[in-house]
Amino acid sequence: MKDSRVKKVLIKMEENKIPQLIVTSAESIFYLTGKMIRSGERLIALYLDSKGNHKFIVNKLFPIHEDLGVEIVWYDDIENPIDRLASIVKKDEVLGVDKNLPAHFLIDLMGRNVVKVFVNSSPIIDTLRMIKDDEEIQIMKESSRINDAVMLKLWKNLKAGFSEKYYANLLSEIYEEEGASGFSFSPIIATSPNGADPHHGTGKDKIKVGDSVVLDIGGKYKNYCSDMTRTVFIGKEPSKEHAEVYNIVKSANEKAISIIKEGVKFSDIDKAARNLITDAGYGEYFTHRTGHSIGIECHDFGNVSSVNDDEVKAGMIFSVEPGIYLKDNIGVRIEDLVLVTKDGCEVLNSVTKEITVL
Amino acid sequence: MKDSRVKKVLIKMEENKIPQLIVTSAESIFYLTGKMIRSGERLIALYLDSKGNHKFIVNKLFPIHEDLGVEIVWYDDIENPIDRLASIVKKDEVLGVDKNLPAHFLIDLMGRNVVKVFVNSSPIIDTLRMIKDDEEIQIMKESSRINDAVMLKLWKNLKAGFSEKYYANLLSEIYEEEGASGFSFSPIIATSPNGADPHHGTGKDKIKVGDSVVLDIGGKYKNYCSDMTRTVFIGKEPSKEHAEVYNIVKSANEKAISIIKEGVKFSDIDKAARNLITDAGYGEYFTHRTGHSIGIECHDFGNVSSVNDDEVKAGMIFSVEPGIYLKDNIGVRIEDLVLVTKDGCEVLNSVTKEITVL
Repeated sequence: MKDSRVKKVLIKMEENKIPQLIVTSAESIFYLTGKMIRSGERLIALYLDSKGNHKFIVNKLFPIHEDLGVEIVWYDDIENPIDRLASIVKKDEVLGVDKNLPAHFLIDLMGRNVVKVFVNSSPIIDTLRMIKDDEEIQIMKESSRINDAVMLKLWKNLKAGFSEKYYANLLSEIYEEEGASGFSFSPIIATSPNGADPHHGTGKDKIKVGDSVVLDIGGKYKNYCSDMTRTVFIGKEPSKEHAEVYNIVKSANEKAISIIKEGVKFSDIDKAARNLITDAGYGEYFTHRTGHSIGIECHDFGNVSSVNDDEVKAGMIFSVEPGIYLKDNIGVRIEDLVLVTKDGCEVLNSVTKEITVL
Repeated sequence: MKDSRVKKVLIKMEENKIPQLIVTSAESIFYLTGKMIRSGERLIALYLDSKGNHKFIVNKLFPIHEDLGVEIVWYDDIENPIDRLASIVKKDEVLGVDKNLPAHFLIDLMGRNVVKVFVNSSPIIDTLRMIKDDEEIQIMKESSRINDAVMLKLWKNLKAGFSEKYYANLLSEIYEEEGASGFSFSPIIATSPNGADPHHGTGKDKIKVGDSVVLDIGGKYKNYCSDMTRTVFIGKEPSKEHAEVYNIVKSANEKAISIIKEGVKFSDIDKAARNLITDAGYGEYFTHRTGHSIGIECHDFGNVSSVNDDEVKAGMIFSVEPGIYLKDNIGVRIEDLVLVTKDGCEVLNSVTKEITVL
């Protein structure tokens, strides 16, 4: 178990009057135990108890060879793991459960009348996971360093004549070469005008001279995600209009980053980027939030959006990714990950944000 | 709405004394409405009411332009969809919910004390989805026809010197060329000895002359999945031992298929394959169930396993995929999809199962 993290959870449990909870998301279990188990439809549940009587319910299909420092309660496919859980929980007390626990487990447990009331205890762990500890910060930095190297290798290969999909496949190989264990999300390689749709992934369209290409890519390193976007131009300088749009997005990215430090609100960061784009006349074309927290999941809990007035804290890592999307014309997005510090922030990506023609 | 399917659900609801239920899985909603919406963490819920007062709760981010024949209740990201649901449900009655509804929605609804009791209503829809109607059978046949064509195209390209991953990427292109919309699961391309691990996906290992390669592949066509496995030999005839293992698996596949007709138990089909392999001395090396139902999901509800004594019915489609796995040596698996009929079954795959050297 990652004792310092478990300790923080126990303190939050006491503050929230939750005497026991089960953690069932693979990512939160990894956060607390150091062990990543993707069990699909089969339940894995880390039971945390205010008295320290923790248990880890695991299907035998996922053997654990190391000592995790917690008692493991094994079950197999002909047993019902809720039988185990029902015999473990403290009777007639509140039980916290993960937000994404499938309903059928909860309904099964409800029907046994052993728990007084169920609460969603995910906010406790989600908010802890937002603030990275030293071990996590080192891994996140390395994960983004790999992403920078991958982006530059991708640029070396990027040229007219090949399809978006071709580069997505190539990217898979580049991540492996650079030491990542795979994508943190399906890459977006969107050549114009596809880049003007922020949801475009990759397709058969071939890159042509004169295109702009949105490259939104991320990998996983030691189970931690990277995520970065650059928009590049192929074979010739952008038109005056496109260069202007590009530089507005770049300024919005830089402006937002410039105000980040502990105590600033997420909504202020969003506003900094959005106001700059709006003042330049493109406000209606910046159609999404400015960013999202990132860590073990590419989209960790916590958005950089106009409706999130929470204050950022030192140790948080999130994306800053303003964009302008002109339908059937051009899309530009520029995204970095930042680590909040007491006095400012550290940008985890170093690939140039100047106009780049490949 | 797919009225004949909705009608079957309503009959089952009455039989099970469930006056109302919500369907929240994207696949089951597609089954009942014809509309596939992948909404991620955002709730979509088809509310079915025994009195016919159905509603469809959808986030505005997923616009629906066609008339689905059901009233749509829209919400946006600053609203809580459970507010909508709480105002729709019949008070103090049983509510059926999908097995995989995330717990936080259920806990939110529980806290409002508007519902008498929650039950897991997924078995109703899951068991209906096991029996394909005419429209589904036509699509499933076409999906498997495409898979056959893809397998043969893959064979044409398969040769020593290229990696498993290379062929996975190529496969993505071949599915597109043949009219599929993508993979139904991450393909398994496992060259010996990797094929001896039934969980191996693809890796960097290069195929060599003399290898055997397990090819377990499937695509999606009109949202319906295909799934087939062939094991082929590269550049030279298999050894006597390998040919023997191959032919035992082939006989097990054929034996199991030969007994399938309406009324046979799933466990009997498993037994037919397993007994043949056991009698040949390889029982301990057939380490998984014989098959699984397939349709909108690659693993639909219902397994061909030794513990499933349910009887198969005409219209069911499932895989028959026995295998033998000799660690660090060779793995052989041969898989077809079959459609159960009154008197027998129809095999949906036509690619040869004879020993094939490429």
